[in-house]
Amino acid sequence: MTCIFSVSWIVTLSLIYNGSKNSCILITIRWCYFLCFTSALQDRDNKFLTKSVEEAYKAVECGDGHPFGAVVRNDAVVVSCHNTVLRNPNLTAHAEINAISEACQKLNQNYLADYEIYACCEPCPMSLVAIQLSKIKRLVYGAKAEAAVAIGFDPSIADAPNQKSELEIKKADGAVAVTAEQVFENARGKFLMS
Amino acid sequence: MTCIFSVSWIVTLSLIYNGSKNSCILITIRWCYFLCFTSALQDRDNKFLTKSVEEAYKAVECGDGHPFGAVVRNDAVVVSCHNTVLRNPNLTAHAEINAISEACQKLNQNYLADYEIYACCEPCPMSLVAIQLSKIKRLVYGAKAEAAVAIGFDPSIADAPNQKSELEIKKADGAVAVTAEQVFENARGKFLMS
Repeated sequence: MTCIFSVSWIVTLSLIYNGSKNSCILITIRWCYFLCFTSALQDRDNKFLTKSVEEAYKAVECGDGHPFGAVVRNDAVVVSCHNTVLRNPNLTAHAEINAISEACQKLNQNYLADYEIYACCEPCPMSLVAIQLSKIKRLVYGAKAEAAVAIGFDPSIADAPNQKSELEIKKADGAVAVTAEQVFENARGKFLMS
Repeated sequence: MTCIFSVSWIVTLSLIYNGSKNSCILITIRWCYFLCFTSALQDRDNKFLTKSVEEAYKAVECGDGHPFGAVVRNDAVVVSCHNTVLRNPNLTAHAEINAISEACQKLNQNYLADYEIYACCEPCPMSLVAIQLSKIKRLVYGAKAEAAVAIGFDPSIADAPNQKSELEIKKADGAVAVTAEQVFENARGKFLMS
C-alpha cells in the first residue's frame, strides 16, 4: 500500500514538473479514490475475517464441531456460521456449507452471485465446490489448510480441486491472517476429531 | 457373466481331461462361489441403484428438487434420499449430501466406513468429496454426469476432482444403467433449474 502511494506521488510530481497540470489533478484524484477503495476493502475483509475466526472458536466452545467459521455477506445481508459436524453428527456440516445453506434459505434463492464468503481457513474441496456452485463472487480466507492438517485434520482437506469458476480467491495477510492461523493451535485438544 | 462362466467350464474340463481331478473340484467350487458372489452383488447393485432412480423421480414429482437420488446402505441400515435444492432453497442439498447427512444422524457417527452409496447419476465434485470424507467404501452410480449436463445442468458437475481416496467406484452397466440415463430425458422440463 505504501509502495503504491509513493509511486502515485512520484508519477504525479513528475507530471507537475513537466507542466501537465490537468493530467496531474486527474491522476491524483484517481489514486486517492483507489487508495480509499482499497483501504475500505481491507477494513471490510479484516472485519468479516475476524468474525469468521470468532465463529471458529464458538464451534469448539459450545461443542458443536471443529474450529472453522464462515461468513456469507453483501451490503444488506450477513450470515455467520460455524462448523457443526459434532452436533447431531453430520460430517457435511462444514462452516462454509452451513453458511451457504443458511444464506440460501434466508434469501429464498439458490444462487449468491452478489455475495462474498469469508472463511477463517482455506475451504476443503467439498466446501470450495459448494462455493463455486453457489456462484459467490469472492472468497477471502485466513489460514492455509495446512494449519488445520498440522493439528490432525485429514490431509485431503488441503487438496484444492480444479478452479475453473470465476470466483476471486484472496488469501488474507497481516495480523488477521496470523489470528486465523492461531485458531488451530489454540483449539488443539479442545474438541473431538470425529 | 456368461463369458466368465464359459471360461470357468473350459478351464475345469481341460483340467479333468488332463487327469488333475482334485484340482478340478477345487477350481469348480471356487468358480461356483465366485459366480454366486458376483451374481448376488450384481442383484444388490441393481436393487439399490433402482431405488436411487425411484428417488430421482420422486424429487421432481414432489417438487423438492432436481432428478437425483442416492442410497447409503449396509446389511443393517438403508438410508434413501433425493435432491432437495428447491425445498427451502439450499443448493448444497444434493441427494448424496442428504443421504450422508441422514445416515450420520441416524447412526450418531460421522464416518461410514462399512457403507456403500448408490447414486442414480455420477456424483458432482462436491458430493464426491463428501463421499470420500465419509470414508464410505464403495460407490455405484448409474448415469454419467454428462447425461445431466445434456439437459442443462452446469457442466462443472462433470468435473471429477482428484481421486486419492480408497473409495471403490463402479459405473453400472446393463438395463439399470439405461434406466438411470433415462431419468434426465423423462424429467426434462418438469422441474425448475434454480
